[in-house]
Parts: sequence; structure tokens; C-alpha cells
Amino acid sequence: MGGADQVHITRRSSMTANGDNVKENHGGDTRNLPVDAVINLDHGDPTMYESYWRKVGDECTFVIKGFESLSYFSNPNNPCWFLEPKLEEAIKNLHGAVGNAVTDGYSIIVGTGSSQLLQAVLFAVTTPLEHASQINVVSPAPYYSSYPEIVDLVKSGLYKWAGDAHEFEKDEPYIELVTSPNNPSGVIRGSVVNREGGVLIHDLAYYWPQYTPITSSLDFDIMLFTASKCTGHAGSRVGWALVKDKEVAKKMTKFMEVNTIGVSKEPQLRVAKILQVIADRCKRFGSPEGDDFFEYNKNLLTERWEILRETVKKTQMFTLPKYPLQHCNYTGDVTQAHPAFAWMKCKEGIEDCEKLFRNHKILTRSGRRFGSDPGFVRVSMVGRDEEFKLFIDRLSMI
Amino acid sequence: MGGADQVHITRRSSMTANGDNVKENHGGDTRNLPVDAVINLDHGDPTMYESYWRKVGDECTFVIKGFESLSYFSNPNNPCWFLEPKLEEAIKNLHGAVGNAVTDGYSIIVGTGSSQLLQAVLFAVTTPLEHASQINVVSPAPYYSSYPEIVDLVKSGLYKWAGDAHEFEKDEPYIELVTSPNNPSGVIRGSVVNREGGVLIHDLAYYWPQYTPITSSLDFDIMLFTASKCTGHAGSRVGWALVKDKEVAKKMTKFMEVNTIGVSKEPQLRVAKILQVIADRCKRFGSPEGDDFFEYNKNLLTERWEILRETVKKTQMFTLPKYPLQHCNYTGDVTQAHPAFAWMKCKEGIEDCEKLFRNHKILTRSGRRFGSDPGFVRVSMVGRDEEFKLFIDRLSMI
Repeated sequence: MGGADQVHITRRSSMTANGDNVKENHGGDTRNLPVDAVINLDHGDPTMYESYWRKVGDECTFVIKGFESLSYFSNPNNPCWFLEPKLEEAIKNLHGAVGNAVTDGYSIIVGTGSSQLLQAVLFAVTTPLEHASQINVVSPAPYYSSYPEIVDLVKSGLYKWAGDAHEFEKDEPYIELVTSPNNPSGVIRGSVVNREGGVLIHDLAYYWPQYTPITSSLDFDIMLFTASKCTGHAGSRVGWALVKDKEVAKKMTKFMEVNTIGVSKEPQLRVAKILQVIADRCKRFGSPEGDDFFEYNKNLLTERWEILRETVKKTQMFTLPKYPLQHCNYTGDVTQAHPAFAWMKCKEGIEDCEKLFRNHKILTRSGRRFGSDPGFVRVSMVGRDEEFKLFIDRLSMI
Repeated sequence: MGGADQVHITRRSSMTANGDNVKENHGGDTRNLPVDAVINLDHGDPTMYESYWRKVGDECTFVIKGFESLSYFSNPNNPCWFLEPKLEEAIKNLHGAVGNAVTDGYSIIVGTGSSQLLQAVLFAVTTPLEHASQINVVSPAPYYSSYPEIVDLVKSGLYKWAGDAHEFEKDEPYIELVTSPNNPSGVIRGSVVNREGGVLIHDLAYYWPQYTPITSSLDFDIMLFTASKCTGHAGSRVGWALVKDKEVAKKMTKFMEVNTIGVSKEPQLRVAKILQVIADRCKRFGSPEGDDFFEYNKNLLTERWEILRETVKKTQMFTLPKYPLQHCNYTGDVTQAHPAFAWMKCKEGIEDCEKLFRNHKILTRSGRRFGSDPGFVRVSMVGRDEEFKLFIDRLSMI
């Protein structure tokens, strides 16, 4: 969600300037790219993280025998009966070690990525249907480009997409999606509608120390996270929701039961192992080994952002958002954000920024898709090194 | 679907006769059951299959390193870009070895279990919306108890549950769910509405040699299968659809993208390995080692059904369906069905069969839930041995 990108968009837009379909670089293997390859930075495929996990080695190898985990059930004593106890424990440990979210007093619901959990929340807070018409779902532009599609997918009678929260003026019940840090812009956000009868869903996919200073341990009513953008394991499709209200948690569980009869066990158990390794290494933060996950990947992103800002400055064609310096409770440093996406604006006079990049064989996502201006594009910063380097080479020649 | 049971039902009905909540037997560990334990045969948790997979040993152990499968993508060259190539290959090999379904000329779509794929099909065949009102979804009673809930979950504007196909008389477009062998009754079924403008979805979760004679290699337009009831790996949540029409396949892929951004990689890769082991052993069918998966588990089910029929005969309280003797192309024998569920009918005068069983601490699913008569119950035949034995002990004392 905030953390996961609808990949079909990539596919649809994955044509070269000449209209050729560029199969070799569809988020597949981007190593050994030819110098004239199309670079796909349209989606946020987090392959940057492979380098860290290669370094860790066997400590994160996951093994399961043929006769294990056959049952539908993970933990019959938990209302969320399909949540693996080890994953629950690792989630709590990691949030505790990082200090980005409170887990005490919360129910944890696991999902097949956080997109599914968003749908579970929408179901939970609109059921049973008490209103004559569907509940409005809004988010302030620029909003995550997949929200409208997720909300309206099967034309639910319970809820409907109602667009930019800044422009929502109806005197009706509403649900506001608060993405913080925001996808695409990377800024920390709060709710904007602030009226009675509203339900807030906090999409916190990027609220981790590699992306942004951790300034407090959040305790909103409904908070969504995903392994995809925390650890880089997007292929595992593991997200989790921290939910204060037990009735909401119960209805979310019900949605998960009917939609997919729970969540696959293997990725839950694997991600549990990975989160626990990260949590254990948190404790060693600042150790000379430099094996802290967040430190290592924050350094990678910081370096990339420095290179990007420098290149952008030279071209004088684009602007990038500025992020405030803030004290990060996790690192103990005063630092700024280094988001997973660059939200780039073309200089005046260039109306279609996505087209400009496409002409240079760089696929990005147009600002239009985020309910914003086509003068903007969103560019992934979390691909493999080789891809990023090629992007910078091209950018410097625009 | 036909192959997967909504587990919350189990939880809701999992009370003893005295109203105690019976946590120790919620599909969790059913080994070392106390003699007075509540036996939960309400859902079809396929733990019976553990014994075979223990026997196989390390050949089915699945290992994945920390840096593998981070990307969202499995195969950018496939329209279903999140389908692991190894799983696709194993699915084709297994259907080829068993001879239960044609795969040549079909698109394969993977899902988080087959429930999700049913929703993907409903979306695909009703989009874009061309009708003033929702498309009717029907299935002949007794139908799989979760169908109504799956179809009406978020009150879609595209489709709606319209009940028993036998009673469907509207002159309107419809979708008919054909479950064969049927859940709950185990019988082979065809479509019943047979009018122009209908779309058929074949739910073939149980069309495998351990359950029923394989009489032909099916080639319906839309066929759904699931690992849950084929191999017993319900916890993996891996289902697949074989789809003739490329446009339908494309729209199903779109649904999967928006609903969960594809399917977790780990269970796909693990199930690929398991299906391939089964396929490889198929070739050795009849070998003295007796290591053919279907042969081994058909023998288990045959034995259980013989014990059940004998016990039922003694009690004179119930009746069981009779299945025709048919030539099975897979085994080469003339055999009858040994379904995953027993569809039991109480003798005249007993109105609530589920209650009768509950009074003996046996949880079953009432016929009412299948659009049928409360004089019927559905009883799982695929639990662990110990559970089955305790069930037979109790049954013989009713």
C-alpha cells in the first residue's frame, strides 16, 4: 500500500519511447543491464535490499519440511487464528526495538500484503451497513496511486472512492487514508478532514528509520505496515495491522477468512525469522560491525539521495522536495528523510514530466496518477545499484 | 472453495453442549486427544495427509535464503507475472500425470487459495459492467456453505448471490458454480440451469484420484483447483485456475494485482516442489514401494469409509450417499468415490442432526448451511487418525 505498488501499471506503461515492449527489465533480473536498457523506476520493487540480505547469509535461511504447516490454523487461541505466533512475537519485538509504534493493547492482524488489510479495514468499519449510501473514502493528493483502484475494485455497496481529502466537503461519514511518510512525496502527514464521524486509517509502510527520522512511537487506532518496504521482502506478501478496537479487529479477521481463508504460513514464518534478525541487530546499533539493518540501508539511501540531489542541481531541470532536519529517536542523530521514492517536479514549461523521462528510456509514474500534476513524476529509489547508476547517468544527460 | 472451508464457522460453532469454549481442539494439534475431547469435524482441515509427507522425508523439504524472492515479480514474460515458473510447470506435469484436466491452450492463474480465484473470476466475467443490475450467482443445493458469503462479502455492484440453481428462473444473465465432486455431497455434478447467457465456473477441488474415480480429462472454460485438498497443504493457501479465454485470464490477473498484488512466492515454490514429487511418483504407480501419493491416501480414505459405513449400518440411525462404481483412468480399477466429507442424513424423526452430534461432542456442519435440510450434516473425513477413531467410537455409541 503506501508500501506496495500495483504492478500492472508498470506493465502497461513499460514501453520504450518507440513502443517496444521491454521485457528484460520488468522488475525481473536487472543485473547486467545493457547501457541502452529501459530502466523501470515506475514501481517500488525493493531489490536494493538484496545486498544486505546476501551479507547476512545463512542466519536468515528458512527451512520447512514437507509435513509441516498443513493445517489452516496457526493459533486457535488467537482471535486472528491464522496469525503465526512467531510472527506476532517478532512484530512486537521489532516495533519495540525501533520505537516507531506501540503494540501493547493492540490486536495484530496479518494480511497478504497491506493492500488486503486496507480492504479488511474498509469492510470492518462499514459493516453492518448503517447508511443509505456508501461511505466516502478520501486521501489528500498527492495520494498513493492505487487507492482509488483498491477501493472501487468490485464496486462495493459499503464504500466508494471520493478523491482528494482537501476537497471533501460533504456532510457525510468518511474514511480518511493517512499515508505517513507519504507515497509519493515522502512527507510526514496528519489527517486533513478532521470532522466528526470520520475514521482514520494510518498507512505507515514507510515509517522506518532507513526512510525517515523516527520522532515518536505512534499509537493511532488503525496502523498498517508491510514487510515489502520494511525488510524488502515484497515477494512474500506479508503485511500487518495494529488495531486498537477489538470489534474492528474481529471484523477484519472475518474479511481475511472469506477473502483468502487467512494468510499463507510459509511467508509468515520466513518473515518472522527476518524481522527477529533485524530486531536482534537493532540492539547492536552503532557496533563496529555495522550490521544494523536500518543503519546499513539508511546509508545506502542517504548516498543515493546525495547523488540524486547533486545531479538534479547540475541539470537545473527539476526540483526535489526538501525535508526538515529532525531528531531520530532510533539513531540518536539529527537527520532528514531519504524516502523510497523521489517526487520530482519538472521546471516550468515542461508539461509532461513522465514523457520526458520516457524519451530517455526511464519509466516513472506520472503525477497525474497520484491525483496531482503531470509536471511531477514519482521515481523509485529502492531498485538495484546498477539500475540506480544507469538512471543517474541518463539524468545527468537530460 | 469447494476445497476450502471458512474457518470462522468452526470457531463460532465450537462450543460444547454445555457452552464451554473448547480451545484445545480448534484444528490445532489434535494429537493425544483426551477421551472426552470435543472432536471438530466441522471444517475440512486436511491433516490426514501429514502421515504421507512424514514418510516422504527430506525430498520435500523447502529451503529459501534470506536474499531470494524479494521482488514482486516471478515471471515478467507471463501475463500472470506473479506466477512462479516452477509452479506453472509442476501444475501442468501433475494434471498430465493424473489425466484429470487438460492444460494445453489454457492460461494458469495462481491464487491465495481458490476462494480468491473465485472472486477473481466473478470480477473478470462481470467487468466492465454491462447490465443495469448485478449478475446472479447460483449453485445447486446442497452447495458449498461459503459461496453465499464469498459472493456477498462487500456487497459488490457487479454480482450477487442468487441461491439454489434449481430454483433460478429469472430471465437474466447468471453465473453458475459447478462443484464436482460436490462439497458437501461428494457426487459428480454438471450444470443445471443450462440457459443462454450463463457463465460456468467449475470448482474441481476434489477431482483427484484419492477422492473419486477419474473418468476423463476435463476441459471446461474455467476450472479451479487448490493444493489444500489435492496435497493437504491448506496452510500454504495456493490455488490455481485453468482458464481458456485469454481476456478472462487477464482480468483475473488484474483482480489479483489489486486485491493482494499477486501471491506469496514461498508457498508457490514449496507447492511446486510438492506437486512435482507427486507427479514423479505417479509414474511409479503400482510399484511395490507403494509410494504413489494418490494410492496411499486413497487407501486411507477407503479404509475410513469402510469403517464409517459399517458403523452407520450398526447404529441404524443414519444414511450415507451411495456412489456408483466407475472405471478410474488413473488407477485402472473399477472403484467408487471416497469423498473428503461424509454427507450424513439422520433417520426420520430427528430434525436437527448437527445438534444430535453436538450432544456427543462432535462438531459437524448442519445441512442448513448448504442450502439444504437440517436433517443432514457434513462431517470431515480428512482429519488426523486419532480424531477419526474417536469419532467412530462416539458414533457407534449414539
